[in-house]
Amino acid sequence: MRHGGDLISYEKYYDGELIDFSSNINPLGLPDGLKEELIDSFPHMTSYPDIKYRHLKFSISQYLKCEPDNVIVGNGAVDIINNFILMFPRIIVVLPSFSEYEERALIYDKEIVRLRYKDDFTLDIGSIEKSIDPNSLLILGNPNNPTGLRIDKETLINIYQIVREKGGYLLLDEAFYEFCPKDYDSTQLFGKEDFKNVGIIRAATKFFALPGIRLGYGCVSRDMAERYGKVELPWSVNSLADRAGRYIFECKDYIRDSQAYIEGEREFLLKELNEIKGIRPFPTHTNYILIKLLKWKEDYVFHFFLKRGLLIRKCSSFSGMDDTYIRVAIKDRENNLKLIQVFKELERSI
Amino acid sequence: MRHGGDLISYEKYYDGELIDFSSNINPLGLPDGLKEELIDSFPHMTSYPDIKYRHLKFSISQYLKCEPDNVIVGNGAVDIINNFILMFPRIIVVLPSFSEYEERALIYDKEIVRLRYKDDFTLDIGSIEKSIDPNSLLILGNPNNPTGLRIDKETLINIYQIVREKGGYLLLDEAFYEFCPKDYDSTQLFGKEDFKNVGIIRAATKFFALPGIRLGYGCVSRDMAERYGKVELPWSVNSLADRAGRYIFECKDYIRDSQAYIEGEREFLLKELNEIKGIRPFPTHTNYILIKLLKWKEDYVFHFFLKRGLLIRKCSSFSGMDDTYIRVAIKDRENNLKLIQVFKELERSI
Repeated sequence: MRHGGDLISYEKYYDGELIDFSSNINPLGLPDGLKEELIDSFPHMTSYPDIKYRHLKFSISQYLKCEPDNVIVGNGAVDIINNFILMFPRIIVVLPSFSEYEERALIYDKEIVRLRYKDDFTLDIGSIEKSIDPNSLLILGNPNNPTGLRIDKETLINIYQIVREKGGYLLLDEAFYEFCPKDYDSTQLFGKEDFKNVGIIRAATKFFALPGIRLGYGCVSRDMAERYGKVELPWSVNSLADRAGRYIFECKDYIRDSQAYIEGEREFLLKELNEIKGIRPFPTHTNYILIKLLKWKEDYVFHFFLKRGLLIRKCSSFSGMDDTYIRVAIKDRENNLKLIQVFKELERSI
Repeated sequence: MRHGGDLISYEKYYDGELIDFSSNINPLGLPDGLKEELIDSFPHMTSYPDIKYRHLKFSISQYLKCEPDNVIVGNGAVDIINNFILMFPRIIVVLPSFSEYEERALIYDKEIVRLRYKDDFTLDIGSIEKSIDPNSLLILGNPNNPTGLRIDKETLINIYQIVREKGGYLLLDEAFYEFCPKDYDSTQLFGKEDFKNVGIIRAATKFFALPGIRLGYGCVSRDMAERYGKVELPWSVNSLADRAGRYIFECKDYIRDSQAYIEGEREFLLKELNEIKGIRPFPTHTNYILIKLLKWKEDYVFHFFLKRGLLIRKCSSFSGMDDTYIRVAIKDRENNLKLIQVFKELERSI
């Protein structure tokens, strides 16, 4: 299982509908009115999407407070990450992190440098400084997956300065950005330098509950946007994703309500999980929680939950993690309570 | 203009709605009932598509009369072509053809062998035989774009045998397959050999009038499907394309009616165009017509049509073609008559 959300592979193990705690989607569902907006756009399916995505890029630029020329788009964030990896000869990953960083680098036969997070899952700036060179693409999850931590602002600026000095490129994968507490907005940190040596990728997938529609986007320098345009596949974003992207960023109430909801549930779930014996939940800035298993291996716990109708994520598929970690999504209160109930059952089995 | 269908770039040149003769989409529009089917599937957008596309591959396998294990899918045919190019060190293209074959090979820094069609746009088997080796991916449009001709059955079998003997790989890009006269079905030609050294790519884009939804698919050996699975991006097909793909292939009436309609319009339009002086339309097996300009260059004719509200395709962007060719789509009778009217105006200007 390289990725979460694969319900079909496991539905045979449970007589009923599985609850998916293995992928991390906004529990509030789609923004109001999006369905109607997309139905209105159906006639557009019989035309190609605008190959330059002019309207879409304009909407994203308003949301990200940058210029349309700074915007790139793709078939989910993973498509954009893939194109970046293609453009650099040397890929630096910090483990554990999203497995596709390494997978795609392997496919393109790139030189891969594997660093590690410190024990508390913060970054070791020294190791980054030693590794980066002008050929290097440093990819950092911000917040990182599966660990859930956001890079603090000072560390990020520090790393950016090192990367610039050494002539490398820093790619921030911020697919979970909107779930984070409002500390800083990285699209506003590097603006004066016009995103020199840095790119920020985000996605509609998780926060806007649209993993099915596939819309990733990013903010880069004009030069990089041009370079990216030469590498990307034509029509990579489908017409409905194009249309959705012109709608969702205007949904200010939905964005605010979702952030408040997730913050409440994050606090609630962490507090409850911290009281369960035999596990150690890590602090998180996002809508999933990494959990260290102190008494069991991931397989046992995975099947324990599966038998009770809950699909969780085993973490050994993240390179750099052993088989004593799981990851769970933060969902709505009703489902979060179910999760806690099963953890309590697990605790009683000690 | 590397691709057709780019209406937005040209709308400022005409006061009214442009008619798009530059991309080649079924003029009958979407199959009946598809819109309702997709609206029903909206709740699925909040989940990831099945990462293995099990239901979709089953539907496609029924349509192509192969096994689900033989089926591959992608974000449009161009995504699949791209992944194939990635897998081979040496790419053989026959010019003129779809520009992305060469573009993608350039991006991956592959060795490119450029052959040419004969003057009548049929294949020169001798040059293929001399070029192919075990590292080679030979890509052939069938029918080819922009020339419009399908490879005749005997030639195709002959080429396949040569490719197999030499240990290369033959990739047939059949994005326009359903528009062709019913001569043979290549998915049934290589079945006994289980698609050894051959892959066939098709698309929902053109025939099912779904360029916005992005659904390409193909039929390959089980071994190649496994190899492909290691290279493709996760979730490359969006949920709506997934659902559309489980619906459209059952629309037998739509398929039959569309084929009959296009056949009638193809005959009508070719007959009319053959009577226009100053141009030479080439025979075609598909829903577009390549036209040699005898008196003008493509730019002049392009703007002549644009001023009258018709967007046609200039062909110098196809590598191997000079600036005296255009390509026009076959549309519905009303629009085809408009096209002929403008050609008659052009003729009067001689």
